[in-house]
Amino acid sequence: MSFTLPQKLLTEFIGTFFLSLTICTAAIHGSTDEYVPFAIASTLMVVIYAGGHVSGAHYNPAVTISVYLRGSCDKDDVLPYIFSQVSAAMIAALISEKLLTSEKDHSVELFSLSSEAVIAEFLFTFLLAYVILNVATTESTSGNGYFGAAIALVVLAGAITVGDISLASFNPAVTSALIISGKVSLSSSWMHFLPQFIGGILAAYVYKFNTK
Amino acid sequence: MSFTLPQKLLTEFIGTFFLSLTICTAAIHGSTDEYVPFAIASTLMVVIYAGGHVSGAHYNPAVTISVYLRGSCDKDDVLPYIFSQVSAAMIAALISEKLLTSEKDHSVELFSLSSEAVIAEFLFTFLLAYVILNVATTESTSGNGYFGAAIALVVLAGAITVGDISLASFNPAVTSALIISGKVSLSSSWMHFLPQFIGGILAAYVYKFNTK
Amino acid sequence: MSFTLPQKLLTEFIGTFFLSLTICTAAIHGSTDEYVPFAIASTLMVVIYAGGHVSGAHYNPAVTISVYLRGSCDKDDVLPYIFSQVSAAMIAALISEKLLTSEKDHSVELFSLSSEAVIAEFLFTFLLAYVILNVATTESTSGNGYFGAAIALVVLAGAITVGDISLASFNPAVTSALIISGKVSLSSSWMHFLPQFIGGILAAYVYKFNTK
Amino acid sequence: MSFTLPQKLLTEFIGTFFLSLTICTAAIHGSTDEYVPFAIASTLMVVIYAGGHVSGAHYNPAVTISVYLRGSCDKDDVLPYIFSQVSAAMIAALISEKLLTSEKDHSVELFSLSSEAVIAEFLFTFLLAYVILNVATTESTSGNGYFGAAIALVVLAGAITVGDISLASFNPAVTSALIISGKVSLSSSWMHFLPQFIGGILAAYVYKFNTK
Repeated sequence: MSFTLPQKLLTEFIGTFFLSLTICTAAIHGSTDEYVPFAIASTLMVVIYAGGHVSGAHYNPAVTISVYLRGSCDKDDVLPYIFSQVSAAMIAALISEKLLTSEKDHSVELFSLSSEAVIAEFLFTFLLAYVILNVATTESTSGNGYFGAAIALVVLAGAITVGDISLASFNPAVTSALIISGKVSLSSSWMHFLPQFIGGILAAYVYKFNTK
Repeated sequence: MSFTLPQKLLTEFIGTFFLSLTICTAAIHGSTDEYVPFAIASTLMVVIYAGGHVSGAHYNPAVTISVYLRGSCDKDDVLPYIFSQVSAAMIAALISEKLLTSEKDHSVELFSLSSEAVIAEFLFTFLLAYVILNVATTESTSGNGYFGAAIALVVLAGAITVGDISLASFNPAVTSALIISGKVSLSSSWMHFLPQFIGGILAAYVYKFNTK
Repeated sequence: MSFTLPQKLLTEFIGTFFLSLTICTAAIHGSTDEYVPFAIASTLMVVIYAGGHVSGAHYNPAVTISVYLRGSCDKDDVLPYIFSQVSAAMIAALISEKLLTSEKDHSVELFSLSSEAVIAEFLFTFLLAYVILNVATTESTSGNGYFGAAIALVVLAGAITVGDISLASFNPAVTSALIISGKVSLSSSWMHFLPQFIGGILAAYVYKFNTK
Repeated sequence: MSFTLPQKLLTEFIGTFFLSLTICTAAIHGSTDEYVPFAIASTLMVVIYAGGHVSGAHYNPAVTISVYLRGSCDKDDVLPYIFSQVSAAMIAALISEKLLTSEKDHSVELFSLSSEAVIAEFLFTFLLAYVILNVATTESTSGNGYFGAAIALVVLAGAITVGDISLASFNPAVTSALIISGKVSLSSSWMHFLPQFIGGILAAYVYKFNTK
């Protein structure tokens, strides 16, 4: 399987974006440091499994240099890769600042959803569906044994990173359970349902772009 | 291997039920948030490995939509899948409320078992046996390398989710050790043994339904 | 590959023994509950990977019943399996009481080793070598991808379970580092070195018994 | 694939060095014990996956003895292996003392980097690239399913072990995000960038030595 440069750069962008978003959101600005190393490692793991077959999943200029010196990265790819990685990281840092203006207390009875929750549910449901499509439905990775771990760790990363922001549902069925449990009100539940379905739909189109 | 719609729907139901049960029990009502993201991720991982070969293991309407758009889910399966997922999540939310009426202090010397402990031991021993039968004894998944992780993470999820309710044994041999250790009394030990064996037996029949 | 009943029973005994030892030592008597679910899950995972190819790695009477009903366990094996599992669990409960008489404060400068430390280093170095021999040097499991996880998680389980008792070295090279760091005195270092080498040697003979 | 004794000894040295460094830095001298068992297990896991195909990845004299008795280690390799392991452990203990003179408060707004941060970024970026080259670009391990876990767990181990010392970036793109987030100043960012690129470059040369 051979991929085009735009497909590789999009993959490097998505991977480095989520890695940096997790680091900035969970570790740098976060009110609590709980489980942060696990969120970071999980995010890295899932984007490696999702994108390894497309771009090699470097997500790191030092790795791109190292892999290039070893002879496993095209010379012409080195600078575009680094540019894609650094710009993804910078954009992630800016978005994580937006996300963090609305951190909430997780223990309150009824969780009031905000526009930041909409962004959080959108981003991680997109990542969830993007990972699933790449590890569980694509030919390049068929027969792999890591699909369950990769998919589940998106939820681990999301729960740690944006749990305080959106309750980390990423799943309309789970949101239904949260409504029954009295944790999310029916009237604000569209702030879960809408970004969740949009995230899933966008992932399908990104996947199609990357495999066409 | 091709599975019937009822087999797929049962698989989606079981997976979404345990995912939602873990989220509602451990995260929403729980007195402590300790390790909750790990319980949720572990539950998702084990039901993916247990059911992936049957239904694709979506357990999430947004994923079903995304996989359908990508072309890997039958159009006729979309609505039944979503219905099975949402009803499983709602039932899980109701059962988790029952479970949580009896939360106990883990540190007391002799642990007094309650009817909630019976439910907890039944549910997670069922899940343990259901996962084992699907990842370690079935042809569709033979040769996989994740069987040990999948089985062990049922216990991780259960220990975090219902450890305060039933001591999270899920195993008559472990209950024997707990009796020796003076943590469970001999007279109440049937509240472990009985649901454990029933859970194991039910799993065998669910497995047979799903592979016949 | 077909194994004899004594080989299967020894495997069930070792697996259930370490599972129960971890539960009793880390969870029941332990002064702190930190990471206990992870220790239990890790122990279960490593003994499954170490023994699955020999006995099926049930380590649980309810699982034995379930696997028998499904048709993957010989009728004549059911009762001996359960007997081996229950006796291993009971012995583990008794040994964990011995171990726990000497729990120490991890933060003191020089760690004073005790006879309990000798038992702890022996048991977990045995488990480490037993797992390595079974997942990294044996034909029945060759080509597996879980060897690194299985081996490393012995150390995770051991560090959580007996870290307060023996510093959880299980490795003469690590003990050398602990001596340099001033954490273990040279004069008491034989309480690490001796049980570590004996554990490694015993594992080699148990392995040979199980594969002859 | 057959490797020379110097290649095997270098592999045993690197593996035992990082295992001992993690134990000494995170567990023995560390101001906090948080997640230490996970750092140790992750380090062991990644060096096993990185070096297993070269030296068997013992990293432990008791394991070398055990594997030798089982018949899977050359008699002539036993003493050199143990010498390499013990000297790596002792050097790691000395370096970890240097590292720990500069532990910082993670929560301060602008993180001031020190010479210890330079060492930390160098060591773990080297390990990251060394693992990537061995698990994701080499023929002996091609087709494995653990590459994502192995690579990600370097970051988990590093975040726990030296997070308080250097912020655990190991990645110039992540450092860019940290500059945008105001956590690292532009003027001191060379203390990340320089050791990161040097670590990646050195790993490429070590890899070439080990596969030539």
